[in-house]
Amino acid sequence: MKKIAMLGSGFIGRFYADSLHGQRSKDKIITVYSRREEAAKKFKEDYGCERFTTDMEEAIAGADVDVVCISLPNNLHEAAVMLCCKHKKAVITTKPLGRNAAEAKRMLLAVEEAGIFNGYLEDLVYTPKFLKAYESVKNGALGRILWAKSRETHPGPHSDWFWDIEQAGGGCILDLGCHCIEITRTFIGKDIKPIEVMCWADTQVKPIDAEDHSIGLVKYENGAIAQFEVSWTFRGGLDLRDEVMGTEGTIWINNFLRTGLEMFTTGKATDYVAEKSESNAGWLFPVGDEINDLGYNHMFAEMFNCMENGTEPRETFYDGYVVNAVIDAAYKSAKTKLWEPVQLDIWRGQSGLSKESHLVEYDADHYLIKEETTHYGAKKVILKNKATGKIEEKVIE
Amino acid sequence: MKKIAMLGSGFIGRFYADSLHGQRSKDKIITVYSRREEAAKKFKEDYGCERFTTDMEEAIAGADVDVVCISLPNNLHEAAVMLCCKHKKAVITTKPLGRNAAEAKRMLLAVEEAGIFNGYLEDLVYTPKFLKAYESVKNGALGRILWAKSRETHPGPHSDWFWDIEQAGGGCILDLGCHCIEITRTFIGKDIKPIEVMCWADTQVKPIDAEDHSIGLVKYENGAIAQFEVSWTFRGGLDLRDEVMGTEGTIWINNFLRTGLEMFTTGKATDYVAEKSESNAGWLFPVGDEINDLGYNHMFAEMFNCMENGTEPRETFYDGYVVNAVIDAAYKSAKTKLWEPVQLDIWRGQSGLSKESHLVEYDADHYLIKEETTHYGAKKVILKNKATGKIEEKVIE
Amino acid sequence: MKKIAMLGSGFIGRFYADSLHGQRSKDKIITVYSRREEAAKKFKEDYGCERFTTDMEEAIAGADVDVVCISLPNNLHEAAVMLCCKHKKAVITTKPLGRNAAEAKRMLLAVEEAGIFNGYLEDLVYTPKFLKAYESVKNGALGRILWAKSRETHPGPHSDWFWDIEQAGGGCILDLGCHCIEITRTFIGKDIKPIEVMCWADTQVKPIDAEDHSIGLVKYENGAIAQFEVSWTFRGGLDLRDEVMGTEGTIWINNFLRTGLEMFTTGKATDYVAEKSESNAGWLFPVGDEINDLGYNHMFAEMFNCMENGTEPRETFYDGYVVNAVIDAAYKSAKTKLWEPVQLDIWRGQSGLSKESHLVEYDADHYLIKEETTHYGAKKVILKNKATGKIEEKVIE
Amino acid sequence: MKKIAMLGSGFIGRFYADSLHGQRSKDKIITVYSRREEAAKKFKEDYGCERFTTDMEEAIAGADVDVVCISLPNNLHEAAVMLCCKHKKAVITTKPLGRNAAEAKRMLLAVEEAGIFNGYLEDLVYTPKFLKAYESVKNGALGRILWAKSRETHPGPHSDWFWDIEQAGGGCILDLGCHCIEITRTFIGKDIKPIEVMCWADTQVKPIDAEDHSIGLVKYENGAIAQFEVSWTFRGGLDLRDEVMGTEGTIWINNFLRTGLEMFTTGKATDYVAEKSESNAGWLFPVGDEINDLGYNHMFAEMFNCMENGTEPRETFYDGYVVNAVIDAAYKSAKTKLWEPVQLDIWRGQSGLSKESHLVEYDADHYLIKEETTHYGAKKVILKNKATGKIEEKVIE
Repeated sequence: MKKIAMLGSGFIGRFYADSLHGQRSKDKIITVYSRREEAAKKFKEDYGCERFTTDMEEAIAGADVDVVCISLPNNLHEAAVMLCCKHKKAVITTKPLGRNAAEAKRMLLAVEEAGIFNGYLEDLVYTPKFLKAYESVKNGALGRILWAKSRETHPGPHSDWFWDIEQAGGGCILDLGCHCIEITRTFIGKDIKPIEVMCWADTQVKPIDAEDHSIGLVKYENGAIAQFEVSWTFRGGLDLRDEVMGTEGTIWINNFLRTGLEMFTTGKATDYVAEKSESNAGWLFPVGDEINDLGYNHMFAEMFNCMENGTEPRETFYDGYVVNAVIDAAYKSAKTKLWEPVQLDIWRGQSGLSKESHLVEYDADHYLIKEETTHYGAKKVILKNKATGKIEEKVIE
Repeated sequence: MKKIAMLGSGFIGRFYADSLHGQRSKDKIITVYSRREEAAKKFKEDYGCERFTTDMEEAIAGADVDVVCISLPNNLHEAAVMLCCKHKKAVITTKPLGRNAAEAKRMLLAVEEAGIFNGYLEDLVYTPKFLKAYESVKNGALGRILWAKSRETHPGPHSDWFWDIEQAGGGCILDLGCHCIEITRTFIGKDIKPIEVMCWADTQVKPIDAEDHSIGLVKYENGAIAQFEVSWTFRGGLDLRDEVMGTEGTIWINNFLRTGLEMFTTGKATDYVAEKSESNAGWLFPVGDEINDLGYNHMFAEMFNCMENGTEPRETFYDGYVVNAVIDAAYKSAKTKLWEPVQLDIWRGQSGLSKESHLVEYDADHYLIKEETTHYGAKKVILKNKATGKIEEKVIE
Repeated sequence: MKKIAMLGSGFIGRFYADSLHGQRSKDKIITVYSRREEAAKKFKEDYGCERFTTDMEEAIAGADVDVVCISLPNNLHEAAVMLCCKHKKAVITTKPLGRNAAEAKRMLLAVEEAGIFNGYLEDLVYTPKFLKAYESVKNGALGRILWAKSRETHPGPHSDWFWDIEQAGGGCILDLGCHCIEITRTFIGKDIKPIEVMCWADTQVKPIDAEDHSIGLVKYENGAIAQFEVSWTFRGGLDLRDEVMGTEGTIWINNFLRTGLEMFTTGKATDYVAEKSESNAGWLFPVGDEINDLGYNHMFAEMFNCMENGTEPRETFYDGYVVNAVIDAAYKSAKTKLWEPVQLDIWRGQSGLSKESHLVEYDADHYLIKEETTHYGAKKVILKNKATGKIEEKVIE
Repeated sequence: MKKIAMLGSGFIGRFYADSLHGQRSKDKIITVYSRREEAAKKFKEDYGCERFTTDMEEAIAGADVDVVCISLPNNLHEAAVMLCCKHKKAVITTKPLGRNAAEAKRMLLAVEEAGIFNGYLEDLVYTPKFLKAYESVKNGALGRILWAKSRETHPGPHSDWFWDIEQAGGGCILDLGCHCIEITRTFIGKDIKPIEVMCWADTQVKPIDAEDHSIGLVKYENGAIAQFEVSWTFRGGLDLRDEVMGTEGTIWINNFLRTGLEMFTTGKATDYVAEKSESNAGWLFPVGDEINDLGYNHMFAEMFNCMENGTEPRETFYDGYVVNAVIDAAYKSAKTKLWEPVQLDIWRGQSGLSKESHLVEYDADHYLIKEETTHYGAKKVILKNKATGKIEEKVIE
C-alpha cells in the first residue's frame, strides 16, 4: 500500500485519482497540492484525502508520503521533480516529461543521481488494446515492423494553460504527439534509434500562437517509419487510433470512438457521455470504462508493483526524454521544412543498425515478388531474375 | 481486505481468481477446494493460496475465511451453499444459481434465514459497456423500453460437465440463457414482472441430450418484450451482443467480437488469442482485457464493497432465483410449444401493471402517427382522426 | 429495350423509376398511372414519360407497353394483376404480393393461366451483399444452414395508406416481414418447406390498429429455423441486418446503417441524407448508393434479362405466394399464441425431409463433441461414449 | 449507344468490360487489341466482341468505333492517345495518365488540339461512397476543409509490368498515389492549387527497383493539406480508406475491407472472394459488388452521358496532368528530402489565394478558442484577449 501526494487538481489529476482509488485498490492519495486553495480543497474532499496545501514542497516533503504524482502544467514539471529529488521521494510524472529535451534531460539526470524511482505516465502504451497488440507484435505475429502510426485528434484540451504556449511549451505536438511518438516507438522497438523527423505543422483554426494541427514522420535506424497525426481541430469527439504494418500482418486499434457500444437517442438524455464527446443526441459512441480503456489502471498497477518489487517500470524518465528529443526535432523541422536529426545525447539502445535485406528466394535463378490467385482462377507467381533483374510472370497451376 | 475460499479450480474459477488477485487488489484467495487433488494443488500454486483441500466443508469452515466463492458445476451449488449457511460464511456463487427454480428457491431461503451475505455472480450485467448503457437507460436516454435482446453464442463450453445434462441441468439455455435473461431483465427493469415465455430449442449439431441452440421470448407485465439467442453451435468465436429499443433511442453493445482491436496475421503467431476464438491466422479480433471487459472486475469490486459496507449487491440470490424461474418456463415451453407462465412464488417487484397507453396528441382532433421529411423535401405528418379513426396525411411545409 | 407502364407514383414507384432509368439503362417508363391526376402528371414530368393517366386499365392496355410495374397499395394489387392477365402483359409487382395467401394464390393462378411473365419485386434478395453472401452459402462455405435471421426496423413508413389496416392488410409484419421471410427462406433453401410459425406481435407505440412490432420464428422441414424481427418503432434510422449460422460458418450483413461511410457534422448540413434517417447532425451513416445497395439495380436487371431470354426470374409470384402463406400463419399465431402450421396448397419444393443426423465420429467408441485449446495451452477433446452415452474429456497434447 | 474499342485485355481491361457490359447497359465493346493474340482472342470470346486484333492502330481506326478505352501499361498510353488524335476518336484512359507530367502534358495538348472527347478513368472519385461524401462536402456539411487523406495499400499488383520500373514508370506512388492525390484534391477543391510536396518513399520488402511504400503530404494554396499513404507491402487485403477533416465535421470512408458484409468460414469454401483478398478461411470481408463499389459503373455512366450530351466529364486529361505533376514533385522530394514545388505549366484554377483568417469573436474584447462541458458539469469558455493575447478561462454556467 502506497501513500501518494498529488500535485495538481485539474482534469488529468482527477482522472489519475479515479484510477488510483478505483476498483478495490490498495493505494491512497493522502495530500494534494494546487496553486489555488479552493481547487486543492475541493479535490481533498472529493477524493477523501487527509490534507491539502498550496505549498508544493510541503506536499512533497510529508514524512508519510511514499510517492509523488505530478499532474501539473508542463512548465512546472521540472521544479516539482527537483523537489522530489531533494526529498528522495519516488516520482511519477504526467506526459510530456518536459517542454523540450533540455528540460527532460535535466530531470532524467537528477532523478538518476538522486536514485529515486521515476515513472513516466504515458498511459496510452498501457491501454488494454495496446497491451494486447504489443504482445502479438513481440510474439512475431506481424513479422518485421515496417510502419506504425498513431493518431490523436480532438476539438482541443479542457484547461486554459494548454492554449498558452509559454506554460504548455507548444501546441498539439507537445500535448498529443508525445503519446503518438511513444506508441509507435514501442511498436517499432524501444531499442531502435529514431534518426530523423519530418514535420508539417500549422495553426489552421484556433486564434493561438501554437500549432493546432500537425503530421510528422519519424525514421528509425532499421528503416522502419513512424507517423503521427495530431490535432486540436478535429470535430466528432476524441479520435484515438493506432495502426501497425509488418511483413506478416497488420493491426488496427480504435481506442475510443468505435469500441462496440453504440447509442442513438433523440436527445432527452442530458448526461455526460465521454471525454471530449461533442454532442448528446443522435448516434453516440461512449466507451465503457474510460479509466481502464485509456490505460490508467494498467499503468498505475505496473508502476506501483514495480515500486514494491524494486524493479524499473516500462516507462521511465528516460523514455520521456527520448520522446522530448523527437518532439524537438519535429518542431525544428516544421520551421526549417527539412528532415531534422533527432539529438540524443543519451541513448541506451542499439546503434549502427542498417536496413536489412529481405529477399525471398523462389528458385536458384529467381527471387519471389508475389504469389497470387486472380479472379480467373489462375495461380501465378511474379519473379525477379537474379542475373538479369528482369521481372517475369509464371503461371504455376 | 477479504480472505476467500475458492470452491472449484476450473475455467471459471481461474477467471475469477485472475480478477480477484488483479490490478493492485486487496483481496486474497487463501484456500481452494477441488474434487481432484491435483487440480486443487495446481490452483494453489498458480494463485499463491495458503492451502488447498479436497474436502469442501473444510475449505468453507476455515476460521480465517471471510467469503466463499462457488465456481463448481451446477449440480453442486446447493450443497455448497448449505454448508456456507451452516458455517455462516458470506457466499458468492457463479451462474446459474441452481439447475432449476426449486433448487434456487431453497438456496435463497437458506441464505436469508442464515442471514449471510449472498451475491449472484452474473458478470455480464457488470461489463463496462453494460454499466454505461444501463446508466443511459436509467437516465431516460431511450425513453420507455420496448424490447431488449441479448445474444450469447459460441462453439461450446470448455469443460466436460457442461455437456452432461445431469451435472449441468440443461444445455445452452441454462449455460448462456441465464446471462441473457438477467441482462434483458435489467434493461427492462428488475421490478417489472416476467409473465410468460415462448421458447424454441433444438439439438441441431452436437451428439448430446441437451439443447445446443435456443431462441426465447419473455413477456413482461408492462408490455415490454425480452429476447434471448443462445447456442453452442456458433462458428467464429464468442458472439456476445445486446440490443435495446426504447421509444426515444436504441443501444447496440458488442462485448467481444468487434471491440476496436483488429489484427491480420499470416499465421506465424501461435499464442492464445481470446476466450473461444477459433483460429489464429487471418483476421482476428482479440479483446483488450478479457477480465475487465467480461465484467469480472466491476462485479467483484461491487460485491466486496457491499460486503464491507453491509449493503446488498446489485445481484443477489433473489435475482438468481428469478432467472431460474424464467429458465424453467423456457424449458417447459420448448416441450409444450406453448407460452408458459413464469412461476414466481417469491416476487418482490411491482405487480398489477398494464400496458400503458402512449397516444401523442397532434391537435384537438388528431393523434400524431409520424412526422417526416421525404426525399423530395416535403415535410408532412401522418395523423389519426380521434373521432373517425381515419388515417390522414398532411403536408405542413 | 422494354417499355414500361408504371402503376403508382409514390415513394416506391419513384425508387423503382430511379433504378429503371438509372446508369445507362435501356429501359423506359412510357406511361404512369396514379389515382391522383396531379401525382401522375408530376411523375410523368420528373421521369420524362410519354404520357400519364388516372385510368389503370388504359395504362396497362397501351399497345406499346411491354411490361407493367405495380407500385400500388397492397389492396390494389389483385385488380391490377387481373388486368395484366386480361391484356396479356408481362407483370412485375412490388412486395408483398397480396394482403394474404388467398389473394396471392388467385394472382399466381391467374398469371400462370394467362401465361404471362410474372416477377415478384423482392429487392432485398438482390442487394449486392445478399447476392455475395448467398453465393458463399450455395458454395458450402457455411456448411449446413442452421439458422437465418433477418431484421428490418425503422421509425415507420412514409405513406398514409401503410398505417390503414384496410388498405395495407396488416402492419409491420406484412410491410417488412415479407422481406425477412424471403431472405431467410432463400438462405435456408427455397425448396425446403416452411412448416410452422410462432409469432409475437404488439402495438407498442403507434395509435393504430395494426401491429408496430413483431418477432417471429419459422420452422423448416429440415430442422432449420428462420427468425424475423420487424418494427415501425425503431429509433436511429433504417436497421437492415441479416445473420446466418451454419455448421461451418457465419455471415453478418449490415445493408444500411453501418456500411463504411461515417460522417460527423455540427449541423450546418441541411440536405436529405438517406431513406429513413432521423437526423442531420452528429454522427450520420449515409449509404453510398441507395438504389444499388437496396437491390433495385440487380433485381430489375435480372427481371428484364429474363424477360428477354424467356426464362423465369429468381423471384416469381409463386415466391410471393409462399411468403404470404408464412405471413398468414404469423398473424394467426400472434392471436392464438400457438405454433401455427403454414398452409401451402401449392408447394413445388421437396417434401418429406426429416432432420438429418450429424454425428461426428472420433474413434470406434466415441463421437466427437468438441476439440479445443484452452488458455493454459492444453489441447483436449470432449467425447461421447457411443455405448454408455457418457461424456468424457481427454487431453491429447 | 456507343461502340468501344478496348486496348488491353488484362486485369483492369476486364474490370472495365464487366462494368461497360454490366446491368442492362447500352454500350458495347466491339473490338479488342492486345499485344498477345491469345489474350486478345480470349477477351473477344469472354465479352462477345465482334473482332480482335494485335494491331493497335487497326483497333482504333475502325469506322464503327465511337470511343477508345485505353487499359494498357503506363508506357504505352502516349502512343495510343496519339493514334486516337490521328483518327479523331473519343478517348478514355486508365490511370495514371502518363508516367510523368511531361508525357501527360503532351497527351493533354494533343487531345485538345485534336478536339476529341477525353476522359481520365479515375474510378475512385466515382465510388458511391465518395460521391455521397463529396456531395456533403460541397453542401458545406464539413465547413472549410482542413485536411484530406487517402490510403490505398495492398499486397501488390497482379500483372508483371507493374513491377518493372521501365514499363510502369514508378512503383506504388504512381500506381496507387494517383488515386489518393485526385481523391484528396477533389475534397479540397479542384480549383485550389497544389503548391508543394513532401514525400517519404522506400523499398522495404520487395526485390524491386521502385518504391513499395510511400507517404506524402501535399500543401494547397489555401492552407489545406492532403496526405497519401500507399504501399504494396500491406497484409490483409485491399485497404482503401479516405478521411476528411473540416472546421464543422469529419468524414471517414472505408471502400473495401469493412463495408458491412462479414463472413466466418472454417475453410471449406474455395471460391474467389474479392480483389486482393489474402485468405479464404477465418473472418473474411468481401464487398458486395466490386464493380459498383470501386466506382466503375458511375464513372462510365458519367463518361458516356457526357459524350452523348457533348459536355465535359468530371475527370479529363487535364486532371490526369495535374495528378502527374504532383507525383513528379513527390518523386523528386523522396530523393532530395525537401518540400518540392509542384510544376504546373498549365493551371486552370484559382491563383493567389492565401490562408484565410478564421477568428471567431466572443465579445468585443475576446476571441473564442473553445466552449465546453467538463465531466463535472461545468460549462466554460476558453478565450483569447484581443489586446493582450492572454488566454483566459471563464465559467459561464
